Amino acid sequence: MTGHNLKVQLLLTGNEIMSGDTVDSNSALIARRLSELAIGVHRKVTVGDEVELLKRELTAMAAEADLLIINGGLGPTVDDLTAQILAAVAGVDIEEHPQAVAHLRQWCARRNLQLNDANLKQAMLPRGVIIIDNPIGSAVGFELTLGNCRVICTPGVPGELAAMLDSILDSLAGQLDHPVEHNILRLQTFGLGESTAQQMISDALPDWPDRVQLGFRAGAPQMEIKLTIDQATAAPLQQRCREQLQDLFGDHIIGEGGTLLAERVLQLLRERGATLTTAESCTGGLISSMLTRIPGSSDAFHAGFVTYADDIKHSVLGVGEDSLAEQGAVSEVVVRQMALGAMERSGADYAIAVSGIAGPGGGTPEKPVGTVWLAWGDPGHIRTRCLCWPVERSLFQTMIAAAGLDMIRRTLLGIELEPRYFAQRRAR
Amino acid sequence: MTGHNLKVQLLLTGNEIMSGDTVDSNSALIARRLSELAIGVHRKVTVGDEVELLKRELTAMAAEADLLIINGGLGPTVDDLTAQILAAVAGVDIEEHPQAVAHLRQWCARRNLQLNDANLKQAMLPRGVIIIDNPIGSAVGFELTLGNCRVICTPGVPGELAAMLDSILDSLAGQLDHPVEHNILRLQTFGLGESTAQQMISDALPDWPDRVQLGFRAGAPQMEIKLTIDQATAAPLQQRCREQLQDLFGDHIIGEGGTLLAERVLQLLRERGATLTTAESCTGGLISSMLTRIPGSSDAFHAGFVTYADDIKHSVLGVGEDSLAEQGAVSEVVVRQMALGAMERSGADYAIAVSGIAGPGGGTPEKPVGTVWLAWGDPGHIRTRCLCWPVERSLFQTMIAAAGLDMIRRTLLGIELEPRYFAQRRAR
Repeated sequence: MTGHNLKVQLLLTGNEIMSGDTVDSNSALIARRLSELAIGVHRKVTVGDEVELLKRELTAMAAEADLLIINGGLGPTVDDLTAQILAAVAGVDIEEHPQAVAHLRQWCARRNLQLNDANLKQAMLPRGVIIIDNPIGSAVGFELTLGNCRVICTPGVPGELAAMLDSILDSLAGQLDHPVEHNILRLQTFGLGESTAQQMISDALPDWPDRVQLGFRAGAPQMEIKLTIDQATAAPLQQRCREQLQDLFGDHIIGEGGTLLAERVLQLLRERGATLTTAESCTGGLISSMLTRIPGSSDAFHAGFVTYADDIKHSVLGVGEDSLAEQGAVSEVVVRQMALGAMERSGADYAIAVSGIAGPGGGTPEKPVGTVWLAWGDPGHIRTRCLCWPVERSLFQTMIAAAGLDMIRRTLLGIELEPRYFAQRRAR
Repeated sequence: MTGHNLKVQLLLTGNEIMSGDTVDSNSALIARRLSELAIGVHRKVTVGDEVELLKRELTAMAAEADLLIINGGLGPTVDDLTAQILAAVAGVDIEEHPQAVAHLRQWCARRNLQLNDANLKQAMLPRGVIIIDNPIGSAVGFELTLGNCRVICTPGVPGELAAMLDSILDSLAGQLDHPVEHNILRLQTFGLGESTAQQMISDALPDWPDRVQLGFRAGAPQMEIKLTIDQATAAPLQQRCREQLQDLFGDHIIGEGGTLLAERVLQLLRERGATLTTAESCTGGLISSMLTRIPGSSDAFHAGFVTYADDIKHSVLGVGEDSLAEQGAVSEVVVRQMALGAMERSGADYAIAVSGIAGPGGGTPEKPVGTVWLAWGDPGHIRTRCLCWPVERSLFQTMIAAAGLDMIRRTLLGIELEPRYFAQRRAR
């Protein structure tokens, strides 16, 4: 048995997940960890804490799957039903499990707590289960085989689940013939839409191999392209696809893995011993926030200016009052002076300056909502561009902040080609 | 038919959800919105983009449910299968829908984009569907009845789904006999943990009525408290609970509904005709970004300073070099001067200044990671406080930015009481 012919299903239980009060991140964690063994999750069912519904799902899923992971319902309260349901479906009794009791005693002792009845409920488990240690919490995990299906029950508290997954993965790896480790390759891009990327690939690479699965994840601001292979023997094919995408998307690729645009910019600055400053109007501090979210950003980012009002552009950055009066704040001359002023006041080597109309108010026929002037470069060479990116306010801010970072990335890499979004987002 | 005897199921599709690359927040959003009509979600199934599996699930779910909401698979790429699957299960053809084409043309025109084949795929829909407008994105939603089940197909992009849910809710409300409209009351809080809030309520309000369901949604930085009633007759009881919570949590309640902290601060400033400036070190522009994300923020926010490096605190905000050398950047005297400098340079009436150690590097035994000095107030009266909030970098930035905004909110409201987190997050 290898990872990808193992049929895996997840059963998630909890009223707080069904009501939407809690966003389920556990199943994503389980899936990501399983993917390390090239195990894919086939199907996932979520239901509330209802006895009959849980019995029905558990029975149906165990009949189909080789591995069923149940998450949630291990806690001390009356609506925690997993042990009871598993016992009923397996046709075995519930009994106090000595190993689970010992775990509870230890857990309480470490916390100076009395072991109470509610806690002890967590040691009442279906006869015959194998215990899975919970290094953090009071509820142990447990495992039972139903027919041909391994059923593994895990706690709903995210930290406890995370702590338990290591030993579950070890146990699964032991069951597999050829556990695969690095089967996914991710490329981070900026400035490509999902449909554009798909169209470009369909047009340029009609012979895309079946064995390399292509996936897109459109986030804001970045889009991830994912190349997944099932077997290690497809790795050379995966590499060839990666090179073909490099030729196709070239300078729109920021990096591999989980690289963020701000991270890449900081890395390039650090390599050059250079610093960057920001002069932000419509993005309101978002560019500096994206930069300073990255650990160690202080190496290359020392100062940012949020000059939201016109008089502040003048008083703080030295933008000419004439320029503001004659051309308006959203103009080439103003962003250029913002960039220069920010570099002068901070001593930084590079600057990004932006001034635009984020909306929903403030648009005019000449400068509609979504219009923005960008300036970037060093004191000796500042470039400017007007774009029109008319989307909802916070998405506009995100995309424009990223575009500013992207232009600095391109400058630092010496990329002369204009990005595709310059043509697509041209202001009228 | 009323909301709570409608049988509702959700079918979620997307390889990125199955692989765990994306955490599904859409189903939580759908469930929360449906709960406004007292509609509960009964069961939720998630599968990857696989034709046969999707057909099987859709058929089985539509046979059981009164309402089936499908999320995902409406995009322009080959792995977007929803329209194709629904047509196959309904036994109808796929055809170009004129209304969807018109929507795509408009959508592209507004963005200066060429309509391409990949986009046009999004207009190929099962014959007989009713279109649901997508106010943001290119993919329209659509609806078809299968047997006794309304099947509603929605986009996987969270913002587009959110934008579409209003009209879906309106349509569902029309189907119900007694739509409950205001059965949920939400309170936004800052500075309370979920377990603390739960404990305080258990202790102070042991007679909490069964008819008012209490829920918590811990986000960062805010926590929402939700009071849900099933029937309009419980509304007075709900009001009484709301008043009891007001007594209990008082100044930790920011507002009702979806009020954001930055929104509340801007509203209070606007009411007073006052302006606010920011002087940020460890939060790196996040406070100004939180403020400027709110439409109309330019009324009350004109300027922000990101002074990340020590010499910038001196050169841009006039912080004394002696103070920096003697006390260090993370000190009371420095944040006080940062606040004063920012007000002087911007002419603002109020300021927030923060300087701290976000980590993971930079901590010392005296000032460990998580240590932060805050200053806030007006030129005549600046207050300061040192907190220690040792959490992961970006969560630290989020919580500290929010704490700064919260202190301005408290100042503007004349609240003298210290928030609970001052005691809980006291620096050593």
